[in-house]
Amino acid sequence: MNLQRIFNAESVAVIGASKDEKKRGFQAIKTLLNEKYQGEIYPVNPKGENLFGLHCYKSILDIEKDIDIALITTPAKTVPAILRDCGKKGVAGVVIIAGGFGELGEKGKKIENEMIDVARQNKIRIIGPNTSGMINVNDNMNLVGIKDVPKGNIALLTQSGNIALHLIIEAKLKSQIGFSYYVGVGNEADIKFHEYLEFFGNDPGTKAILMYVEGLRNGRKFLQQVYKTTRDKPIILLKSGRSATGRKSAGSHTGSLAGISEVARTAFERAGIINIENSDELFPVAESLSSLPPIHNNKIAILADGGGHATIAADLLNDYGVEIPDLHEKTKKKLAEILPSNASLQNPIDVAGGTDSDPLIFAECARILLKDKNVGGLLIVGLFGGYAIRFAEKLKFIEEDAAHQIGKLIIQTGKPIILQSLYNFARPHSLDLLRYYGIPVYDSLDISCKCIGALAHYGHFLGQYQTKTNFVFNWGAKAKNEGKAIIDNAFKEGRNVLLEQEAKEILHMHGASVYRDRVAKTADEAVKIAKKMDSEVVLKIVSPDILHKTDAGGVKLKLKTEDDVRNAFNEIINNAKNYNNNAVIKGCLVSKMLGAGLEVIIGTKIDEQFGPIIMFGMGGIMVEVLNDVVFRVLPISRNSAKKMIREIKASSILDGLRGKPPLDKKAIINLLLIVSEIIESYPQIQEMDLNPVIVHENGIKIVDARIILGKPLHE
Amino acid sequence: MNLQRIFNAESVAVIGASKDEKKRGFQAIKTLLNEKYQGEIYPVNPKGENLFGLHCYKSILDIEKDIDIALITTPAKTVPAILRDCGKKGVAGVVIIAGGFGELGEKGKKIENEMIDVARQNKIRIIGPNTSGMINVNDNMNLVGIKDVPKGNIALLTQSGNIALHLIIEAKLKSQIGFSYYVGVGNEADIKFHEYLEFFGNDPGTKAILMYVEGLRNGRKFLQQVYKTTRDKPIILLKSGRSATGRKSAGSHTGSLAGISEVARTAFERAGIINIENSDELFPVAESLSSLPPIHNNKIAILADGGGHATIAADLLNDYGVEIPDLHEKTKKKLAEILPSNASLQNPIDVAGGTDSDPLIFAECARILLKDKNVGGLLIVGLFGGYAIRFAEKLKFIEEDAAHQIGKLIIQTGKPIILQSLYNFARPHSLDLLRYYGIPVYDSLDISCKCIGALAHYGHFLGQYQTKTNFVFNWGAKAKNEGKAIIDNAFKEGRNVLLEQEAKEILHMHGASVYRDRVAKTADEAVKIAKKMDSEVVLKIVSPDILHKTDAGGVKLKLKTEDDVRNAFNEIINNAKNYNNNAVIKGCLVSKMLGAGLEVIIGTKIDEQFGPIIMFGMGGIMVEVLNDVVFRVLPISRNSAKKMIREIKASSILDGLRGKPPLDKKAIINLLLIVSEIIESYPQIQEMDLNPVIVHENGIKIVDARIILGKPLHE
Repeated sequence: MNLQRIFNAESVAVIGASKDEKKRGFQAIKTLLNEKYQGEIYPVNPKGENLFGLHCYKSILDIEKDIDIALITTPAKTVPAILRDCGKKGVAGVVIIAGGFGELGEKGKKIENEMIDVARQNKIRIIGPNTSGMINVNDNMNLVGIKDVPKGNIALLTQSGNIALHLIIEAKLKSQIGFSYYVGVGNEADIKFHEYLEFFGNDPGTKAILMYVEGLRNGRKFLQQVYKTTRDKPIILLKSGRSATGRKSAGSHTGSLAGISEVARTAFERAGIINIENSDELFPVAESLSSLPPIHNNKIAILADGGGHATIAADLLNDYGVEIPDLHEKTKKKLAEILPSNASLQNPIDVAGGTDSDPLIFAECARILLKDKNVGGLLIVGLFGGYAIRFAEKLKFIEEDAAHQIGKLIIQTGKPIILQSLYNFARPHSLDLLRYYGIPVYDSLDISCKCIGALAHYGHFLGQYQTKTNFVFNWGAKAKNEGKAIIDNAFKEGRNVLLEQEAKEILHMHGASVYRDRVAKTADEAVKIAKKMDSEVVLKIVSPDILHKTDAGGVKLKLKTEDDVRNAFNEIINNAKNYNNNAVIKGCLVSKMLGAGLEVIIGTKIDEQFGPIIMFGMGGIMVEVLNDVVFRVLPISRNSAKKMIREIKASSILDGLRGKPPLDKKAIINLLLIVSEIIESYPQIQEMDLNPVIVHENGIKIVDARIILGKPLHE
Repeated sequence: MNLQRIFNAESVAVIGASKDEKKRGFQAIKTLLNEKYQGEIYPVNPKGENLFGLHCYKSILDIEKDIDIALITTPAKTVPAILRDCGKKGVAGVVIIAGGFGELGEKGKKIENEMIDVARQNKIRIIGPNTSGMINVNDNMNLVGIKDVPKGNIALLTQSGNIALHLIIEAKLKSQIGFSYYVGVGNEADIKFHEYLEFFGNDPGTKAILMYVEGLRNGRKFLQQVYKTTRDKPIILLKSGRSATGRKSAGSHTGSLAGISEVARTAFERAGIINIENSDELFPVAESLSSLPPIHNNKIAILADGGGHATIAADLLNDYGVEIPDLHEKTKKKLAEILPSNASLQNPIDVAGGTDSDPLIFAECARILLKDKNVGGLLIVGLFGGYAIRFAEKLKFIEEDAAHQIGKLIIQTGKPIILQSLYNFARPHSLDLLRYYGIPVYDSLDISCKCIGALAHYGHFLGQYQTKTNFVFNWGAKAKNEGKAIIDNAFKEGRNVLLEQEAKEILHMHGASVYRDRVAKTADEAVKIAKKMDSEVVLKIVSPDILHKTDAGGVKLKLKTEDDVRNAFNEIINNAKNYNNNAVIKGCLVSKMLGAGLEVIIGTKIDEQFGPIIMFGMGGIMVEVLNDVVFRVLPISRNSAKKMIREIKASSILDGLRGKPPLDKKAIINLLLIVSEIIESYPQIQEMDLNPVIVHENGIKIVDARIILGKPLHE
């Protein structure tokens, strides 16, 4: 599983080396030479013609020294044989450029499977196939051909070569930072997203991981790895294929399954991933997270010389859930001392032209704001960088001095700064100075806000990180023998559906309250059942011939004592006989006395990408009309369960409507955790459906439960 | 109201002309001279020192010739006296730069009011105060000082000078188009948004209007003007102050009321405005709408050489509600003839490298797609513009040929094209050729999608334009004498709330079904009432002593004939007496027989910015928990009423749940229109509240109605 030798290879064989300028086998060697790769380069081609003054080998087996990695540029059908040779030669890994594998349906899938078999037998790891390649940027090992990739500490991991190209161009043009590695994952036939992630997570030269994903082949393993990685390094991810057409488009060119976006989105967020929806934001957010400290209190100040920019920024940050707090009185006082009377001293701060003749005052405002304990980070918007251009040439050096002052604040305060400038297009020296201190500078207000929002989200994630919820099942750990017996028995009887009472039995043994009211045939029996319930009870007539129980005097509520129950039983039976002399009377149903209730539903199923997931929602009309449900990947923590309840649209119903008392949210949380435990305990369960579950003021009852089984264990 | 003489002034007086380089009175004259304004320039300053070789006048009254416009650069307190002189001189309009008016509270408001009084008396129109100024770009009349504003056909109208600067810089750097006029509206003390809009709407040199708005002083007049303008020219608008902090920020620097965003957003949309939320999209959308034909069928094709870009574009267009239709079989066949087998021929089209060696094939794909009748516009994403850079230098001229082919498709097909290119940064000639044909080119996928989405939205608006719904009230047109009498009587009695029966009476006389069931004391009376109802009826016992009417045999349903009613009446009275001999019996309630019902609510109120607005929502839990309501500015059209019903989240309940028959949506629509008519007929009404209204399978009933009055007419 160690990809070290592949990513830091000291020797590369290019299989399919060619004299034809248009061929990848030509371009690949040219690129390695041009970029001054320091390792050994071995062209391989059956014709054996020398290339660029390098000796060309007819077969990889002819090379005397060890080979770490082979770049295979020949067509799909040649790959299995080449891999066998690579195996004999002890090659650690190969990059396979060619398409024509799994993405082309059955026939391609067959070649892909053969290729994987050969690779496994020979302990060769594969990047691709159907990939643009891989680059170790800092070692100049460029197996892709994109020129001038800037060096830096962002690892780039994508499912589209063009998107990678897009991001690399952006980095080159707009920032002073760059990349540690680039990998085009291609078909992920062998090495998958989570393994790349593990490698980059452990790589000391990588500070942030930037990903473009269309579909995941093993979402659960991916999430488990994400959980380990995001503790140390931010992952910035754009997952496309949100729409049906988008999924169709993704499917047609990667051969991967594009995911259920809602489940993916919440699972990603929970694991600390910074989700991006607009591709313009992808590189800037990675830039910000790779170079700045995160914000720990979700509170930022906006410093503007331009009211319009401040207003738009406030709107956007509000959309991202970032607070723009009131400032300390001392802060306002200090600002008032240096700014004109028409400046706005409420966050967002608008200097209202008060720094036009002296940008150092602007820098001092930044200092004052970041010293406020309530302020976790600073967004600067407007004219900075353009003072010399706009107001007076002589301000140039003062503005540069101000840039140094602002830049140093990051080290001094440990808080991040992002700057948006109208004059970024002119690339003034003052803004390059800010970049030198690690402050990203953008033209775009929207992107600047997204970046500072991402710093706040990642800081929040780090603050609430919980190792317990890393999507790892400890299969069977809490299974009960009685539970196993019920499931085994069902399999034995050839059933894949548990009987309702079996499902309820399993729920009950894991601590859930199931609605299992019992019918008492005699007053003594009623007393006995009531005693077990340890609560006020209700007695109701049970008779197929009496439909309107209340009319028949067949219902007695709030029975406390043994005598209450006994008298009620006798009275009900008498009333019933009086009401309808011919009625068949089966006894009385004994139930716990519960307050008013509300229907909710809980379910689980197996998601294609992420494995077991849980659903919670309002029952009845809410789920039918509004589809008011939330999903989580299992297992869940208590904290996740709480959030699920908060996230449903009609959540406030649970707090009690129209003066009614609140319903028992704690009991819902416990039930969600019990369901999580059951799914963890019995991996045979394919699907669980608790519908309806009634939530009361005090307690919860599962009215109906259904469990569907998948395969027996060890099959 | 004619602003012609101001915007196309042939002579400008600069009041406050100065030798001090830092002063606006210096910069203004320098700018006019530098930009080669062809009209007359008259510096005015009490000191009378000549400037730039121009004679300087001590007072505007000393100038011999007529003056069209005066730029006033002196402080607020000097303005009223200057305006008096301008009045004497017959100046048509002034631009007032200074702040210190209404935006600074009571004291400033006083000066502002004085200024307006003087201006009105002297028939002078005011741009500002507290503004960056105004530019007639094509006449080089630059009264702002921003340099090198590109000439073109977009009118720019903003409430923030910095945002204007931002947009102008963007136009200069990124496109080949520019502006006809720029106005900073400032405090709108005199000329308001709607008047500027009217002028630009009639200006033949303006093709699109680009606006940045923080708050509107007269939203209704603005909307009325918008309705007239958007028929001919698109309006692209960013309204900031969506969030509480954003509103606070806007308030602090413009002194304007920022608006209720939800009401504003839907009103803007309905009037055909293209709403923008991200400032990065503002200029590009204006560029696209000013230079391309709109899309009439909401359907576009995506042509990509890069699968990742196609997938992201499909997601974004789906978010914008644009369709990516299936292509005609002929289209696919033609594409298949020129593209390789691994290309995706489903919309989005991915050429999969099939045009790398010949960009003319790419142009041919564009032609084939635009010839498809189902395709209303084309979005091209990926590498175009970079074929020569990426693949082979010699492709340069072929790519330029392809650009000509693609560019001409706009004239040939009348359909728009937008292009996103990874290589836009390199500014290749091929992309400038596309711009020459009016095709906007962007780096950003997000912006390209937004632009083509805006072309589809504007095309849709033009297609469904209805003159009836232009927010103009024909006050009192449909008032009834009886209705007026009820309102007058309430005022006479010193009430500002109508009695429930008065409110219902007004609703009834305008055609609404109010719940006014009547009690029959005798069987004859019941028959008489039932006859009037012209429907099956229900009879119910009316007795304060009988709560469970059904148990008492006190309810009879579905009574059709006279005999049915008579018999039912007698039977009910008998049953009731038998059930409780002591009960006081008041008779029977006669009601129409209605199906199951659902509670909805309808209300109206006066919005600060837009005047009378209407609200519709689900009653009960839906409004309390989910706030499931929609708003519209009144009056509304039948089409608007239909859309309101469709827009509530729980709308599908009305279609019938769980096999129940659908409820009477038509009746809701009619009631919404009746409420609209009532508000139009009686301008004295301040607020109306119909809650609840019960919707049945067949009909609707207002159960409770409340009307609150404002001021009597003519007061």
